[in-house]
Amino acid sequence: MTPAAVGIDVGGTKCLGVALGEDGSVVGELRLPTPDSPEGLVDTLTHIASELGAVDAVGVAVPGLVNRDGVLLAAANLTGVKMLRLRELLEARSGLRVLVDNDNTVACLAEWKLGAGRGVDDLLLVGLGTGIGGGFVSGGALQRGHNGFAGEFGHMIVMPHGIPCPCGQQGCWERYASGNSLGYHAREAATAGKLTAVLAEAGSVEAIRGEHVTAAARAGDTEALAVIDIFADWVAIGLVNLTNLYDPGTVVFSGGLSADPDLFLPPIEHAFHESMYGGDDRPWPSIVFAELGPLAGGIGAALLTQL
Amino acid sequence: MTPAAVGIDVGGTKCLGVALGEDGSVVGELRLPTPDSPEGLVDTLTHIASELGAVDAVGVAVPGLVNRDGVLLAAANLTGVKMLRLRELLEARSGLRVLVDNDNTVACLAEWKLGAGRGVDDLLLVGLGTGIGGGFVSGGALQRGHNGFAGEFGHMIVMPHGIPCPCGQQGCWERYASGNSLGYHAREAATAGKLTAVLAEAGSVEAIRGEHVTAAARAGDTEALAVIDIFADWVAIGLVNLTNLYDPGTVVFSGGLSADPDLFLPPIEHAFHESMYGGDDRPWPSIVFAELGPLAGGIGAALLTQL
Repeated sequence: MTPAAVGIDVGGTKCLGVALGEDGSVVGELRLPTPDSPEGLVDTLTHIASELGAVDAVGVAVPGLVNRDGVLLAAANLTGVKMLRLRELLEARSGLRVLVDNDNTVACLAEWKLGAGRGVDDLLLVGLGTGIGGGFVSGGALQRGHNGFAGEFGHMIVMPHGIPCPCGQQGCWERYASGNSLGYHAREAATAGKLTAVLAEAGSVEAIRGEHVTAAARAGDTEALAVIDIFADWVAIGLVNLTNLYDPGTVVFSGGLSADPDLFLPPIEHAFHESMYGGDDRPWPSIVFAELGPLAGGIGAALLTQL
Repeated sequence: MTPAAVGIDVGGTKCLGVALGEDGSVVGELRLPTPDSPEGLVDTLTHIASELGAVDAVGVAVPGLVNRDGVLLAAANLTGVKMLRLRELLEARSGLRVLVDNDNTVACLAEWKLGAGRGVDDLLLVGLGTGIGGGFVSGGALQRGHNGFAGEFGHMIVMPHGIPCPCGQQGCWERYASGNSLGYHAREAATAGKLTAVLAEAGSVEAIRGEHVTAAARAGDTEALAVIDIFADWVAIGLVNLTNLYDPGTVVFSGGLSADPDLFLPPIEHAFHESMYGGDDRPWPSIVFAELGPLAGGIGAALLTQL
């Protein structure tokens, strides 16, 4: 049966293809390793689109900066990719109409149409992973910005002359509030002589990861809970900024934290309400976790073909 | 002659009414003092609309948080205003259709339709005055956010636990980069033993204002130019953040700085290009100054009636 739409999420290690039925349900999936050459990538994407039954169009989600002509300017996780004219190459190779967009932008599209942000005209998606990516819907339309680069929430500077970021800036939000930053704050605490149980478990300061903190906090370790509070304060600073700038009705968090909403959501909401401007006079945005999980990128890519 | 549209900009001290012709030119103006009671305000607005020849609608620009029902939640500069149902009251009093929006939002509309941002689908207006207000166009539409509060750029936190802001937050961008902040940075420099010529001119550290710095910088005072560089660094941090978030084609600055673009624009652009992520791989937004000056609020309010 011909699917209603086909999309592919290109990650650093695998390409995940998704076929959607008329009702938005996932009717097909195909995962293949991400090739390490642009030619190999175009071949793999063509193959996945064909296997999943794409007949006229395919959407592709890519990490990094992608412009509105479907050119991938740079992507930290994709080997050898620089100024890759992905839409043009894939259209020529596959014969399909091709739509290419940033993975967090399309995840926002997916959660807006089929997930945790259904029906919200002003919506943010904040993806807390290795870094922090994002996407937004304003006034009932998915936004890309002038060049296609909008929604780079992780590179909002929240600490002038702060921690250097691989992007070249200093003090980017993702240095303090990404999924990986939980481990950073824990190592800082351990270096300062705190977090003794976690340190004993991990073996050394350098070996401490976010998972150690999450596990210890679940067991009631107050020092681990204090690290989660520090992390939540940093998440809240960005959330305050995003709320003052976009005034969203709903903010959808995606990424690793989504697995532990009971541990992270209360301290994040507490810190957010503590620091936000105009507390009594304004309604709060809903803070929710993503519903579509790791398929969001593929689903959103498929939905690009229906916009 | 009946004007094409009538708008009124409500300020802390005066209400400025503007009538626009079919071609967007200003064909009438009326200024009256802002009354200090809600009833007086509604009377004055009704009078201005009538005098300027409004026949079916009037737009009103107000400072502070205004929701999408035209209720002014709070405004620092308007005495006794709290939860004022301005649209409803003014419609009942005047018999006109009434549209109410934030003053920076409508200034953005004005610069987008008739000023420095004409034809730009992704546009930011940054108003550097006593504080920093803003408005934005994304995807070719003026945006208000879920509640009407979008574009509060000045309350983006750029320094955790930084200078307290009257809004209740700490480290808001407007504490470091508003028009008034130039004086703050100058007083800091004078306290640290610098800025000797400016200090002598002003008489005391407390008496130093931004105008002293601007005048001294014009005369070539290197210490004053250094203060402008510090100020420009803070403006640039916010500009980096706004660019990473919205990816605008153009950023329009309005407010007092617009009088001295040659003094402020080069250091702001320099600091912005120094700190911005992805420098070589991405096009820069155009940084321009507003064209419509103090009439922007009234013109934008009038344009609300034509959206």
